[in-house]
Amino acid sequence: MRISELSDSTGVSVPTLKFYLREGVLHPGASRSRTQSDYDASHVERVRLVRALVEVGGLDLATVGRVLRTIEAPEVDRLGVLAVSQQALLGEPVTDQTCVEQTSTPGPQPREGAGRAERWLRARGWSVQERDPAIPLLDRAWRACEDAGIGLDETRMDQYADAVERIAAVDVASVPAEPLAAVRQVVVGTVLVDAVLSALRKLAQQHVAVTGHGPVSDA
Amino acid sequence: MRISELSDSTGVSVPTLKFYLREGVLHPGASRSRTQSDYDASHVERVRLVRALVEVGGLDLATVGRVLRTIEAPEVDRLGVLAVSQQALLGEPVTDQTCVEQTSTPGPQPREGAGRAERWLRARGWSVQERDPAIPLLDRAWRACEDAGIGLDETRMDQYADAVERIAAVDVASVPAEPLAAVRQVVVGTVLVDAVLSALRKLAQQHVAVTGHGPVSDA
Repeated sequence: MRISELSDSTGVSVPTLKFYLREGVLHPGASRSRTQSDYDASHVERVRLVRALVEVGGLDLATVGRVLRTIEAPEVDRLGVLAVSQQALLGEPVTDQTCVEQTSTPGPQPREGAGRAERWLRARGWSVQERDPAIPLLDRAWRACEDAGIGLDETRMDQYADAVERIAAVDVASVPAEPLAAVRQVVVGTVLVDAVLSALRKLAQQHVAVTGHGPVSDA
Repeated sequence: MRISELSDSTGVSVPTLKFYLREGVLHPGASRSRTQSDYDASHVERVRLVRALVEVGGLDLATVGRVLRTIEAPEVDRLGVLAVSQQALLGEPVTDQTCVEQTSTPGPQPREGAGRAERWLRARGWSVQERDPAIPLLDRAWRACEDAGIGLDETRMDQYADAVERIAAVDVASVPAEPLAAVRQVVVGTVLVDAVLSALRKLAQQHVAVTGHGPVSDA
């Protein structure tokens, strides 16, 4: 199909499609003539994925590019899937294999200058890499909450973490064994399912506020 | 303090501060002379909140404006806090008080043309308003997942929802009784805690993947 037909199929304007081609987030079509290219179903699918990552996932185009390159050439074994996926999303290498804490007992004192998030992670005993780029993200978001007067202390953070562990268990259980499919699932799923969870949280707040009770406790 | 000192205190450039003043997300300082104004601690706090909502929460400035107006003049009773807060965040009125489903038993057939999210919400029995703006958000994010090859069926959605109910219970329990504080907590907390939860989810995925087990089941 021509680029105008690709535009009709996806609802994305021709100038935007040309921008995607220039930025490399859309692969070139087959040359039909000196000025025309031929696009197929793979282009329709790619444009839809780019739109979803931008509009639903809120990613910028540079991150979309990293995500797509990762999906296409994931030279990783199964264990590296999460690290490679995080790198695609956060733009930082995850090289240090040291874990903050490997056991479920409180660990040693955190190194000097460690942020509140890292100290809390150690106390909780989560197995995460010391230089995981999500740690400074957590630190920043936590500080923003405190600065804004949201009383997010360690107790409330632990309550959130208990619930998020359940979410992560669903995430990890749904990752396919095949590496290429796994990276796609983790990278795209992390972004798009965040949007699902954000909408679910707003709806669940209404439900809990109206009915006056949360889920059955398992304490 | 002068605007240059407000800039030093907050790390936000003078041109950006002037932009905030023009856009109305920062209240004017007291006039000191024809060309100078005097800023105080309330301006420092406001600039920090705007930065947090933009940088950590990912809001655009129009939404920040709605959030701030809502925080400042929440003419609502306690029950209306969530509706007003959602309106501030999503920019749509929540007027229809009809609930999708008020009981925990499966409800009647959804109206014709209802999206998958609405049908699923009915089956789940969550008490949410029929025109809740989070429903189309959920619909769109769910469709984006399916289009991108993320196998997010009703079973997996229910597993996520079980976990998110726990998050919402923590959210609702932390809302103060006083309406003005409540609106602030809900509006700002929804945005900034979403960022906390997103970072937590990435870390929890690592933990679950490394340790090979999720939280203790309460099934």
